[in-house]
Amino acid sequence: MKRKSVILPADEIPRQWYNILADIKMNPPLGPDGKPVSPDALAPVFPMNLIEQEVSSQRWIDIPEPVLDVLSIWRPAPLTRADRLEKALGTPARIYFKYEGCSPPGSHKPNTAVPQAYYNKVFGIKKMTTETGAGQWGSALSFACAQFGLTCKVYMVRISFDQKPYRKAMMEAWGGKCIASPSTETKAGQDALARDPNTPGSLGIAISEAIEAAVTDPSGKTRYSLGSVLNHVMLHQTIIGLEAKKQMAMINEYPDIIIGCAGGGSNFAGLAFPFVQDKMHGKKIEIYPVEPKACPSMTKAPFVYDHGDTARYTPLLPMHSLGHAFVPPPFHAGGLRYHGMAPTVSQLANEGLITPKSVSQTEAFEAGVLWARTEGVIPAPETSNALAQVVAEAKLAKQEGKEKVILFNFSGHGLLDLAGYEKFLAGQIKDFSLSEEEMKKSMAVFKDFPKPQNIKSI
Amino acid sequence: MKRKSVILPADEIPRQWYNILADIKMNPPLGPDGKPVSPDALAPVFPMNLIEQEVSSQRWIDIPEPVLDVLSIWRPAPLTRADRLEKALGTPARIYFKYEGCSPPGSHKPNTAVPQAYYNKVFGIKKMTTETGAGQWGSALSFACAQFGLTCKVYMVRISFDQKPYRKAMMEAWGGKCIASPSTETKAGQDALARDPNTPGSLGIAISEAIEAAVTDPSGKTRYSLGSVLNHVMLHQTIIGLEAKKQMAMINEYPDIIIGCAGGGSNFAGLAFPFVQDKMHGKKIEIYPVEPKACPSMTKAPFVYDHGDTARYTPLLPMHSLGHAFVPPPFHAGGLRYHGMAPTVSQLANEGLITPKSVSQTEAFEAGVLWARTEGVIPAPETSNALAQVVAEAKLAKQEGKEKVILFNFSGHGLLDLAGYEKFLAGQIKDFSLSEEEMKKSMAVFKDFPKPQNIKSI
Repeated sequence: MKRKSVILPADEIPRQWYNILADIKMNPPLGPDGKPVSPDALAPVFPMNLIEQEVSSQRWIDIPEPVLDVLSIWRPAPLTRADRLEKALGTPARIYFKYEGCSPPGSHKPNTAVPQAYYNKVFGIKKMTTETGAGQWGSALSFACAQFGLTCKVYMVRISFDQKPYRKAMMEAWGGKCIASPSTETKAGQDALARDPNTPGSLGIAISEAIEAAVTDPSGKTRYSLGSVLNHVMLHQTIIGLEAKKQMAMINEYPDIIIGCAGGGSNFAGLAFPFVQDKMHGKKIEIYPVEPKACPSMTKAPFVYDHGDTARYTPLLPMHSLGHAFVPPPFHAGGLRYHGMAPTVSQLANEGLITPKSVSQTEAFEAGVLWARTEGVIPAPETSNALAQVVAEAKLAKQEGKEKVILFNFSGHGLLDLAGYEKFLAGQIKDFSLSEEEMKKSMAVFKDFPKPQNIKSI
Repeated sequence: MKRKSVILPADEIPRQWYNILADIKMNPPLGPDGKPVSPDALAPVFPMNLIEQEVSSQRWIDIPEPVLDVLSIWRPAPLTRADRLEKALGTPARIYFKYEGCSPPGSHKPNTAVPQAYYNKVFGIKKMTTETGAGQWGSALSFACAQFGLTCKVYMVRISFDQKPYRKAMMEAWGGKCIASPSTETKAGQDALARDPNTPGSLGIAISEAIEAAVTDPSGKTRYSLGSVLNHVMLHQTIIGLEAKKQMAMINEYPDIIIGCAGGGSNFAGLAFPFVQDKMHGKKIEIYPVEPKACPSMTKAPFVYDHGDTARYTPLLPMHSLGHAFVPPPFHAGGLRYHGMAPTVSQLANEGLITPKSVSQTEAFEAGVLWARTEGVIPAPETSNALAQVVAEAKLAKQEGKEKVILFNFSGHGLLDLAGYEKFLAGQIKDFSLSEEEMKKSMAVFKDFPKPQNIKSI
C-alpha cells in the first residue's frame, strides 16, 4: 500500500521559523512625516515582543514550546501527491500539495494566530481585537485565544456578518465575541454609521474599529492583531514550507514550480519563502503567487508606498497596491480581496525572484470542482485560485512532455464557503474585468506619497 | 517534541475488514411471510456482491485495492491523545480518540460509501440512489460515486433541504444530484404530497423514494444504498477500530473503556467491534454506545423484530426499536434520530457485551464546547454525545483516582452543523423527555410481529 501522504516524523517538526528579512533588503515603513517608523510608535497597537519580531533580521527564530504544543493539534501537516488529479489531466507532471485544511478552523490562518496569541499572553495582554472579512481570520484568532485563555473580539464586516451567520457561531464556540462592523462601540463605527446608517461595512472600517478598541482600552491590556501582510505573519507561516522541504526530501523530490494563492500574501509566503532562500542560493525554481484577475495587485499595480488600510491608520508600506480605497468587484474568494500585498512578497516580485500570475473566477471554480471530484476535498475559493494555476502548469507540462514537479499550498477547505460553488454549478458565476480607467482612479490615491527605492537584494 | 497523534505506518493500514458475524449468532431478517429473507429477494435493491457480504460469516474480508486507494486520501486516520482536555478536567484518565473528521465530507461515513460505490461499479451498476436526513450520508455517497464515475441521486428530507442549502451545494460539487423529498418523481413522493402538499418530509418517505427510484429504473442499472444499520456497513467501518488497535499497540496502551455515539450504530461499531472480539476472548473492557436521551432505542426500548423504515418496505430486522413510526423530538444531532439500532449492535447489547448509555442534549453541547476550547476542533453534534460520556467517565476516574484509558470515536467535525452551537450558546437549547405514554404508543406497532429469540453467542 502506497500512502498518498508523506508524514513527517514527530521529532522532525521545524523548531524555528525562517525570517526572509535576513536575506533581502527592504524599504522601511514610513510615518506621516515621511520618516521611517520607530518600533516604539507601534507599541499601543502590538505587544513589544511581536514588534521586535516584525523588525528582526535574525534568519532563524525559535518557535516557543507552548506554540508547538498547540500547533501539534494538526501539525506537521501532510504533504500529499495529487495522483488522482494527475491521472484526470493525463499530465506527466507530479503534483504535490501541503494540506492546511486539517486545522480546527480549516485553513492556514492559525499558524500565525497561535503564536500571536501566545506572544500577547506572555507580554501580559488579556484581550485581542481584530477584524475579519470572510471570517477565516476571526475564526482562527478565536480558536488561538481560547488555547491561551485570552478574550477575543472580532469586528466582522456587516455584509459578511449577515450573509454568514455560521462564522459567528464558530467564533463563539471558541469563546470569541463577534460583532457586526460598523458597530456603535467605537468612534470609527459611530462615524461610519452617521455617514450611512445602512452601510454594508468594509474591511477598512472594521480595521479602524479593531485598532481603536485596542488602543483606547484604559487598562492597557488590549492589543490588535493582523492576519496577513506584516513581516511577523509571513514568518509564522514559514512552518508550512519548512515542513514541505523536509517531506519532499524524504521522497527524493524537489519542486520545479511552487504555487500559492495570494491575497495579503501569507499562505503563499509560508510555503514559498524557504524555497526562495534556495533560489537565492542558485536553485532553479519557478515561484508563482496567484491572484484573482479582479484584484490584481501584483500583476497590474505598481510597487509604491501606500497605506495598509482604507482609513490611513497604518504607516506607509512599500508594496504593490491598487490604492488603499480600492473596492474589488464582488467575486467569491473573500480572502483575496485586499488592495495591497505583503511588503516582503512585493519586494520579491519586484526583484523577479517570484513571478506573479492571475486567474479568472471561472477558471478557479472549474479547477476547484475538478479537484473535489478527483482528490475529494472541496477547496476554499481562495485555494481554487492556486489550483487553476496548478492545472494550467500541469497541462503545459503535458504539451511539452516534461516531468515537472509542482508543489502548491492547499490553504484550506471550502466547507464554510459553499455558496460560491452553488452559484458556479448553477451557471450564475461571471468574471469581472477592471477597466483601465477604474484602475487609474483607484491608484491616484498614492501619487503624492514618497516612492520606494528599487532595491536589489542579490 | 511529542506528537499528539499516533501515525500508523503506510504498510500497516488494515487490508481486511473484521466481520463480527463470524463470532456472534443472529436472528435472521424476516420477510412479510414471517420466514427468513433469501438473499435473492434483495437483488433488485442491492448489487449481489454487497448482498453476499451482508450475509457472509467469513471473519476477515479483503479490502479491495481500489477502495484502499480512495480511502488513502485521508486514512490511516490519526489516533490522538486529548491531553488538553485531560488537563482541563484534572483527570488521571488518559483519553485517546480516532479522528474521522479529516475525510472530504468530514465524517466516518465515506468509510462505507467508498466500498459501496466500488462494489456497485464492479457489479455493472451506473447509478446509486439514497436518502439523507441531516446531509452527512448524502454528501459521503456523492463523494464516493465521483471517485468511481457513478451517478448519484440523493433524496433529502425537505425540512433539512430547506434549512441546510449548503449540503446540496456540497453534494453537487461532487457531481451528485440532490432533490427535496417528497418529490414528484416517485409514486411514494406523489402519494406523500397528495396526503399533505406542505409536508416537511421524513426519512421514512425519503427511503421509500430512493428504493423506488432504484427498483423501477427500467435499465436495471440502478441500486439503492444505506449508510448505517446493515451488516456490511458495520463491516466497512471496522477499519476504524482495526487501525486504532494497531495505534494503541504502538504506544503500549490498551483501552479500559471504548465509547462511540450510536444512531444507526455504524461509527460506534466501526471502533468497537474489533475490541468486542477481544472481549469475547477474555479481555476486560467496558464498551459504551451512547445515544441521546430523546431517542433511546437501546436504553429504553426492547429487542424486537421491526421494520427498518416507516413505510415498511424493509424486512423485519431483529433490533432494539422505538417503533418504525417513531418521530423523535427536534434535537440537533440529526444522525442520531433513527428509531432502531443496527441488528449486530442490538445483539451485542442484548448479550451484555456492550453497555448502552444515554446523555441529554445540553450535556452533549456542553461537552462539545469544552472540547472546542481545549482540543480545537468543533465536534459534530452527534460526536458531542460520545464526548459527554467521555467527560463523565473522565470525571469518574478522577473521583476514583484511577488511571483509566478511554478510547472514543470522534466521528466528525461540526462545521456544517453550527446552528445548534449558536442556539446552545444563546441559551436556547432545551432537553426533551419522552413520556411513558408516548413511548408505549410508538412501540405498539411491533406488538404483533414475531419475537426474536434470546440467542447467546458465547
